[in-house]
Amino acid sequence: MTSTERHRVLVLGGDGYLGWPTAMYLSARGHEVTVVDNYLRRLLHMEVGSGSLVPIADDLDQRASAWQELTGRQIRVVVGDLTDWAVVQRAFLESEPDTVIHYGEIPSAPYSMTNRERCVFTQHNNIINTLNILWALRDYAPQAHLVKLGTMGEYGTPDIDIEEGWIVINHNGRSDRLPFPKLPASYYHCSKVADSTNIEFACRSWGLRATDLNQGVVYGIDTDETVLDPRLSTRFDYDAVWGTAINRFCVQAVVGHPLTVYGGGGQTRGYLNIRDTLRCVELSTLHPAVPGEFRVFNQFTEQFSINELANLVLRAAHDFGIEATIESVENPRVEKEAHYYNAKHQRLLELGLTPHLLSTELVEHMFDTIERYRDRVASSHILPKARWRPRALVQV
Amino acid sequence: MTSTERHRVLVLGGDGYLGWPTAMYLSARGHEVTVVDNYLRRLLHMEVGSGSLVPIADDLDQRASAWQELTGRQIRVVVGDLTDWAVVQRAFLESEPDTVIHYGEIPSAPYSMTNRERCVFTQHNNIINTLNILWALRDYAPQAHLVKLGTMGEYGTPDIDIEEGWIVINHNGRSDRLPFPKLPASYYHCSKVADSTNIEFACRSWGLRATDLNQGVVYGIDTDETVLDPRLSTRFDYDAVWGTAINRFCVQAVVGHPLTVYGGGGQTRGYLNIRDTLRCVELSTLHPAVPGEFRVFNQFTEQFSINELANLVLRAAHDFGIEATIESVENPRVEKEAHYYNAKHQRLLELGLTPHLLSTELVEHMFDTIERYRDRVASSHILPKARWRPRALVQV
Repeated sequence: MTSTERHRVLVLGGDGYLGWPTAMYLSARGHEVTVVDNYLRRLLHMEVGSGSLVPIADDLDQRASAWQELTGRQIRVVVGDLTDWAVVQRAFLESEPDTVIHYGEIPSAPYSMTNRERCVFTQHNNIINTLNILWALRDYAPQAHLVKLGTMGEYGTPDIDIEEGWIVINHNGRSDRLPFPKLPASYYHCSKVADSTNIEFACRSWGLRATDLNQGVVYGIDTDETVLDPRLSTRFDYDAVWGTAINRFCVQAVVGHPLTVYGGGGQTRGYLNIRDTLRCVELSTLHPAVPGEFRVFNQFTEQFSINELANLVLRAAHDFGIEATIESVENPRVEKEAHYYNAKHQRLLELGLTPHLLSTELVEHMFDTIERYRDRVASSHILPKARWRPRALVQV
Repeated sequence: MTSTERHRVLVLGGDGYLGWPTAMYLSARGHEVTVVDNYLRRLLHMEVGSGSLVPIADDLDQRASAWQELTGRQIRVVVGDLTDWAVVQRAFLESEPDTVIHYGEIPSAPYSMTNRERCVFTQHNNIINTLNILWALRDYAPQAHLVKLGTMGEYGTPDIDIEEGWIVINHNGRSDRLPFPKLPASYYHCSKVADSTNIEFACRSWGLRATDLNQGVVYGIDTDETVLDPRLSTRFDYDAVWGTAINRFCVQAVVGHPLTVYGGGGQTRGYLNIRDTLRCVELSTLHPAVPGEFRVFNQFTEQFSINELANLVLRAAHDFGIEATIESVENPRVEKEAHYYNAKHQRLLELGLTPHLLSTELVEHMFDTIERYRDRVASSHILPKARWRPRALVQV
C-alpha cells in the first residue's frame, strides 16, 4: 500500500473527541471511512453529569449527513458496542477494512479510579473490545493494519529515558530488545497496558500487524474539518473526569476560576495539538507496519510540566484581557510531583510530522471559542471528586 | 505477623489442583482456612470432555467434611464466583483474612487459544476477579497480604537472564528498577500479565501489599495431606488442554502412548514439585510483603528442556518395566524451540525452601498411582487440538 492509495478505513470510537475529526480528516483525503460507536462516551457524561462545552450534533447520522451535504463525501455509520462480537463481525464484514483505527475505549483515568464498578467497567470494556478486534482481524482481515490509540501514561515516570515501546536491555553480559517496562498511572492506564500486551502477542503469534500510538495529552478544539460547520464540531470537555490539562485550564481562565494545579505541579508529560493527532494517524495509515510487526510510536510533540502549562495559559489570558490566577489543590492522584522525564518521539517526525507547537496565540484562539459557550460551563464539575488513595488508606 | 502466628487465610480457587492441597496444608499447620470456589474448573473439563485421572470428592463440602473427620480441623467453604462482587464481599467479611492466597483463575493456555469465546472468557474471568479482590482488600482488609499465583510464562523466553519480577535497567547514563518486561506465550498468559500490572499499581497507589508467585510448571500427585484418604485426593490432569508436561508424559508412558514432544523439544522452562508449591505459598504467608510492596518470587526449583523431561520419563519407565517411546508432533504453539533460558529463583530459597528435586524414583511413584487409574484415561484427549496459529495464517 503506497501513500497515494485510498484506504478502506474502519474508525472505531468514531463519535469521540478524536474519532470524529479523524473520520472527517481521512474522508476529506479520499479514504473510504466507516465509523463505529455505541455513544458510550455520551452516556458516561450523562452518568457523571458533565457534557461537551461545544455543542455537538445529536448523533453520528446527523454528523455524517452534514458531512455529505457539505463535501459530497460519505462516511458510513455502524452503531453498536465493540464488546458485542456480532457488532464487530458486522463492521468488519461490511467495511472490508485495510486499516482499523481503534479509538473505541473509555479514556478517563479519574473515571476508572472512582469506584469498583467504574474500574471494572473500564477494564472490561477496553480489554474485551480490543480482544474482539484482534479476533476479527485474524478471521476476516489478517492483512489489515491495526492503528491503536495507546497512551504515554502506560509508561508512567521512570527514572530513565522513555523509548518508543521497545528497549534494548543489556544485562549480565547479554542483550535483547524487549517491551519497554510500564508503570501505569491508573486502572484506565492499566487497561491500555493490557491492550498493548494482547496486541503484541497477536502480532507475534498470528502475524498480525499493528501500530500502537502512545499518545500524549491532546489539546485544541478545531481541525480543518470541524470548523466547516457547527454540525461538524467535535466535543470539548473541561470537567475533572473527562477534561485534560490545557483544555481545562483554558475554560477555567475564561470563566474566572483559578487554574487548578494538582499538588506541586512538577508533573511533566507529553502534549500535542489535536491537528497533529490526525496527521499522526494518517502517517501511520499511509506507512503501515509489516506483517508480524508490533511497532510503537510515542505520539506527542512537546513536554511540559503542569506549572509551565498553567503559566502559559496565564500569560495568554493576560494578553486576552483576563486576569487569571493559579491555585494549587491537593493532588487527587498518586503520582510523583517532581521527576525526571525524557520521552523519545522521533518516529512520527521521521515519517513527516510537522508539529503545531503550543503558543499563546493558539491558547487565545481557544479562549475565543470557549467565550462563545461560557454559559454552558457547569462550574461544579471543575474540581476533582475521585481520589486515587482514599483518606482512610493514607496512613497505611 | 511472625512465623509462629496463626493466620486467617482465604484460599481463592480452593477446589483446584493446587488450591485444595494448599488449604489442607495450611489447615494442618494451624491456620484458619476459608476456601472459595465456583467449580469452574470442573465445569470447563466437562465442556472440553476431559476429567481428572485420580477420582476426587464430589464437592468442597465432601472434601471439608472428610478433612474434619480425619483431622478434627475445620476448613470453611464459600461456593461462588469471584467475578461476582457479592461473593467476594461475603468471603472477605466472613473470613476477615490477614492472608489472601489467590489461585482463582482459569489456568490453561490452550483453552484460551481455542477460539474467541474462550479467549475472552479467560481474560474476563481472570482480570475481573483479580480486580474485585484488589477492591475488597482496599475496602475490607487493607493490611492483608495478597499471595497471587502468577506464572513464569509471563516472561516468555527473552535472550537475557530473567530476574524475579523487577530489573535494574541502565540506559543512556541513568538507571532505574522497573518491572521486568513480559513476552507472554498465550492469551491466558496475557491475562496473568494484566493481573501483575493491576496488582503492582494497587500496591503503589493504595499501599496494599502483595507477593506475585511466578510459578513454573508443577508436577506431582501426592502431598502429605492428599495421601491421608482417597476423599482428600487432588485432581490430576493429563489431557492436552489442562495437563502439563511431566504429568502428561507419565500418563502417556503408563497407557502405552508415545511421549508427545511438541516440535524440536528444546523449549526450556522452570519446574517444581507440588509439595514445593505448598511450601512456597507457606513461606510467602509467614514472611509477608511490607505495606506498599509488590514483590515477585520466581517459584520453581529446576529448569529442564522438554527433551530432557521426555528422556527422564523414558528412563524411569524402563526401570518400571515399561518400554516407552518419544514422538515429535507438530508444535501447536508459536514459541521458540531452541533458546537461551536462565531464570533466577533465589528468593524462596533464601526464605527457607528445600526443594524436592525431580528424580526417576519420583516419576516411578507417579506411575504407581497412574497405573491404579489407567482405565480412566481417555486417549482421545492426549493430542492437542488447539493451534496457536491456524494454517490459514501460516503464510501471512
